Amino acid sequence: MSTNTVRELLDGEYAEIRDRVRWWLSQPGNEPVIDLPLEEHRAKVLAWMQELTTEGDTGRGFPAEYGGQDNVGGSVASFGALAFGDLSLLVKCGVQFGLFAGAILHLGTERHHARYLRAATSLELPGCFAMTETGHGSNVQALDTTATFDVDADEFVIHTPHEEARKDYIGNAARDGRMAVVFAQLVCRQGIPRRGGEPGADKGVHAFLVPLRDEHGDTLPGIRIEDCGPKLGLDGVDNGRIWFDHVRVPRENLLDRYASVAPDGTYTSPIENPTKRFFTMLGTLIQGRVSVSGASISATKVALTIAIRRGLRRRQFGLPDEEEALLLDYRTHQRRLLIPLATTYALSFAQDRLIAELDAVFSSDAEDRQRRELETLAAGVKAVATWHATETIQACREACGGAGYLKASRFAALKADTDVFTTFEGDNTVLLQLAAKNLLTEYKDTLGGDPLAIAQIALGMLAERLKLPGRDEGGDLLARKTQLELFRWRHEHVLGGVARRLKKGIAEDPFGALVDCQDHLLLAAHSWVDLVVLEAFAAVADRDPVLDRLCSLYALSRIEAERGWYQEHGKLTGARSKTVIKTVNALLAEIRPHAGELVDAFGVPESCLEREAHAHPVAAS
Amino acid sequence: MSTNTVRELLDGEYAEIRDRVRWWLSQPGNEPVIDLPLEEHRAKVLAWMQELTTEGDTGRGFPAEYGGQDNVGGSVASFGALAFGDLSLLVKCGVQFGLFAGAILHLGTERHHARYLRAATSLELPGCFAMTETGHGSNVQALDTTATFDVDADEFVIHTPHEEARKDYIGNAARDGRMAVVFAQLVCRQGIPRRGGEPGADKGVHAFLVPLRDEHGDTLPGIRIEDCGPKLGLDGVDNGRIWFDHVRVPRENLLDRYASVAPDGTYTSPIENPTKRFFTMLGTLIQGRVSVSGASISATKVALTIAIRRGLRRRQFGLPDEEEALLLDYRTHQRRLLIPLATTYALSFAQDRLIAELDAVFSSDAEDRQRRELETLAAGVKAVATWHATETIQACREACGGAGYLKASRFAALKADTDVFTTFEGDNTVLLQLAAKNLLTEYKDTLGGDPLAIAQIALGMLAERLKLPGRDEGGDLLARKTQLELFRWRHEHVLGGVARRLKKGIAEDPFGALVDCQDHLLLAAHSWVDLVVLEAFAAVADRDPVLDRLCSLYALSRIEAERGWYQEHGKLTGARSKTVIKTVNALLAEIRPHAGELVDAFGVPESCLEREAHAHPVAAS
Repeated sequence: MSTNTVRELLDGEYAEIRDRVRWWLSQPGNEPVIDLPLEEHRAKVLAWMQELTTEGDTGRGFPAEYGGQDNVGGSVASFGALAFGDLSLLVKCGVQFGLFAGAILHLGTERHHARYLRAATSLELPGCFAMTETGHGSNVQALDTTATFDVDADEFVIHTPHEEARKDYIGNAARDGRMAVVFAQLVCRQGIPRRGGEPGADKGVHAFLVPLRDEHGDTLPGIRIEDCGPKLGLDGVDNGRIWFDHVRVPRENLLDRYASVAPDGTYTSPIENPTKRFFTMLGTLIQGRVSVSGASISATKVALTIAIRRGLRRRQFGLPDEEEALLLDYRTHQRRLLIPLATTYALSFAQDRLIAELDAVFSSDAEDRQRRELETLAAGVKAVATWHATETIQACREACGGAGYLKASRFAALKADTDVFTTFEGDNTVLLQLAAKNLLTEYKDTLGGDPLAIAQIALGMLAERLKLPGRDEGGDLLARKTQLELFRWRHEHVLGGVARRLKKGIAEDPFGALVDCQDHLLLAAHSWVDLVVLEAFAAVADRDPVLDRLCSLYALSRIEAERGWYQEHGKLTGARSKTVIKTVNALLAEIRPHAGELVDAFGVPESCLEREAHAHPVAAS
Repeated sequence: MSTNTVRELLDGEYAEIRDRVRWWLSQPGNEPVIDLPLEEHRAKVLAWMQELTTEGDTGRGFPAEYGGQDNVGGSVASFGALAFGDLSLLVKCGVQFGLFAGAILHLGTERHHARYLRAATSLELPGCFAMTETGHGSNVQALDTTATFDVDADEFVIHTPHEEARKDYIGNAARDGRMAVVFAQLVCRQGIPRRGGEPGADKGVHAFLVPLRDEHGDTLPGIRIEDCGPKLGLDGVDNGRIWFDHVRVPRENLLDRYASVAPDGTYTSPIENPTKRFFTMLGTLIQGRVSVSGASISATKVALTIAIRRGLRRRQFGLPDEEEALLLDYRTHQRRLLIPLATTYALSFAQDRLIAELDAVFSSDAEDRQRRELETLAAGVKAVATWHATETIQACREACGGAGYLKASRFAALKADTDVFTTFEGDNTVLLQLAAKNLLTEYKDTLGGDPLAIAQIALGMLAERLKLPGRDEGGDLLARKTQLELFRWRHEHVLGGVARRLKKGIAEDPFGALVDCQDHLLLAAHSWVDLVVLEAFAAVADRDPVLDRLCSLYALSRIEAERGWYQEHGKLTGARSKTVIKTVNALLAEIRPHAGELVDAFGVPESCLEREAHAHPVAAS
């Protein structure tokens, strides 16, 4: 294979930006932290951030008029590459530039932009994104913090009504944040909270700019902040809890792109439906989710590079009187590393497709439908990519044995820091349900709710199902067409099935039907993500023969994993299913000689790989 | 259900010993460490150990004549319960009492016992188990450290011939160890190392007692020790590296139960075959492996208790205008927690069966076959239980969202500390191959190598396969008999298949055949462990109706996971396979109301669960 060609395909149109980040990470002192006391780690991360802002890297996605480069895609690509390095730096940058500055950009209007954007992207104004509460992390429409408008004072009163309503796990809060974008239930005229409130009294969740600390770093009156305490990972990020005790902010601190409150307390919004309004607001913040999936893919690349290179160096067992065999010559080792390698390539190409869609949506006035498609893709890829990272990093650690257990191997940080990726920016299980909901909406839209059309599709699926096993026997498993057809067939079948089940059940017992279909919904979303990911890989795989094989390995390993389903639905016979397994094994053997080049092509900076195991002084007993 | 009945079944004959450990863990100051600087953690663990020794808990498995209680089973049961608490304490105890003292007991003879056992079990003599080298962790028969007999001095010369031969990851080495059991290639008369050595010159790996530090804790001449540096977890254990530079020890420091060297350098051993000799020695150290699987099951119980209780408390989403729904009322949450709960119960019962076998073997002169069966069971259960721990603890962390990411939740330590369980005491992949090898030996023994008998079995399997799908349709999936038959059929089929494949391939290309059958070997071992685990659960499941359902949930969730295989082999039809999934879902709903009681029955001390999220001072900015 040509490592250069593959590297070019992986880096795509953002090659230059990604190389710049690689260069930065390769500078002495910028390598990821291996073992630093918490406060030193926090200080180092802050210093790194400051360095990055002076070089203009952190405002890239913002409008040129506020010092940015109007390059949303480049910004996310750069963020993804930064994830080769210290993930605390990544997450803290995500909080400051993605969430805090991003909320000001997307939820605020010109006066907010003019006043705050430069300060936020230059880190003059360190900020927080205070959405999650102890009581509500996933169901954020049900947050309990209130923002009550006081007509006489022309101010909002931000308040934490009870302990579960405190803001929790808020990045940048424990140490550095001076201001927060606070999400709270907007109460106009009457101070009646959300649940059981009078109709019209409660306007739903809105975002407010709330100063937290003065220029000396002292918390302001009415604000209480606590450090969340030691975490599983991401030591360099200062997560905290925030309580508000009737904190007053001027009326203009409402980020009012989607709703405003007049001096007399009149509430207006271009979006009438409160739920639609809230999710439109959330939708503008999607960049965070896209960034997390990109970061998880980069972290996975680091882990695979370390483990595969070790597998090509380390020998153990073998035949008597011969040199011991390389670990990567064992099939079990190939299975645990090369299948994730193929999946990581596939996700990497899918991620770039996602970045392209994100860039397109935010560079134009996109239609609702295009936004929904982006939301679906972002939710699905984020869930699949972050779970893939958790699993793969674990497999890589185990593949490196005891050496992988030393912090010098990098796995400690990779594991601990990425662990929360499956949770933040949306819990994966919740995200897959969101993706499924969107796919169902699309499905309904496509059919126009016409029962005849639905019946026809169902009949078509049935016919296909009765007929196909025989037909499929003829298809070459290595042909992209066969693979795509298997993925597509599965997704359509699952989606159609869950649509019918939900339609039937939801009228009688909505919650029962949802619970009963929940797995099926996850499957519908996951099968769709699988398809999109394969399509993304397929679009480039013909550029190099090794990539072509790797793409087949991705496709067939997914089919192998789902072969129970394929057989249940008559799409694969038992014999054909066994052939899938054999073909995966054959592909592993074909990929094996290229494993080293395939990880080289990721271009993970050497500074981000494992450290030399060096001498440590022995403590006195 | 009756929580008491279930608790009694879980604790079994070692209820009193397990309760004693629970009591100890519940004493103020004995709760697991949440966040302590490394050296303080190490000191605390050492102090805990000293406390445990004075109370006689650490010598339980040793002969009464050396202060023990001759209670091997009780010792392992006690160790398992200790894993509810701080896992650094557990592992350091494992090194000192299980590995170091255990090696003296099992590999040494009376003079070693008389001189060292009391000192080792009372911690007067802190010791190490120096087997693993940087270059060899799994293939320990190929260690490179040498022990050359010097006839004139009547001494062994222990030496590290090259960098890869340094002892690595050795617990107790960096700080506390005064002596080590060192595994080295015994060279008699001629100083020729293992590979390429003349026949007879190299006697293979043997164990030697080598002093490391004097009574002030200073390392002795010729010994170099380094701290391994920060690890992913187990901060309270002082792992180190050891180099030997021609270190001399008296001839009697050879642990000579299985081989001795006369003053004239003559080597004698009751076991002629060097490979058999080595594996006999290793076999006596099996208690460590059994202890690790027990510990991993306890750690899993802690994680499940935390996550399931939270799932019964925490609400999120639900129907409009109603109270939000409990997390554990969602099927996705049930799937991620209740299936592992069922598996944990199953493994817990299997572990007690393993302890009983261990106790039986070490309380009598067991036959080779009984020892091999124990070895197979220990290897298989260790691999399955430790992987189960890694997966389940991860699932529990995710099920607790952001709260699970705080160290106070306990998941940080549970994840990090158990991570290496899949590696130490035998890499899981290697262990499953060991188990498979033993199963194949047994299979061959049973058939007596008779080709006709083999052919008959093969034909029987084929006939069964052609006939069974229809027959199986009639079996009640909830009947234990049906479940056991499905498990047994699978194991026999897989084992027979791999035996045939290996037989065919190994003559032509031994390494190629092994690699080609490697997955199949793992499957043969894993399917056997599944069967044994189900049998262990089935033996007690009829004592309580909820346990009965839980046992079915274990059985059917395993069949669900392997339904691709069952369909490929004509054992389940597609329709039947779908019924398995539906039955699992129905069982989840049945178990759900008992989830709280089922974790209560684990009896995890409250002190070992999550801590209150309490105030942390905010650092000055």
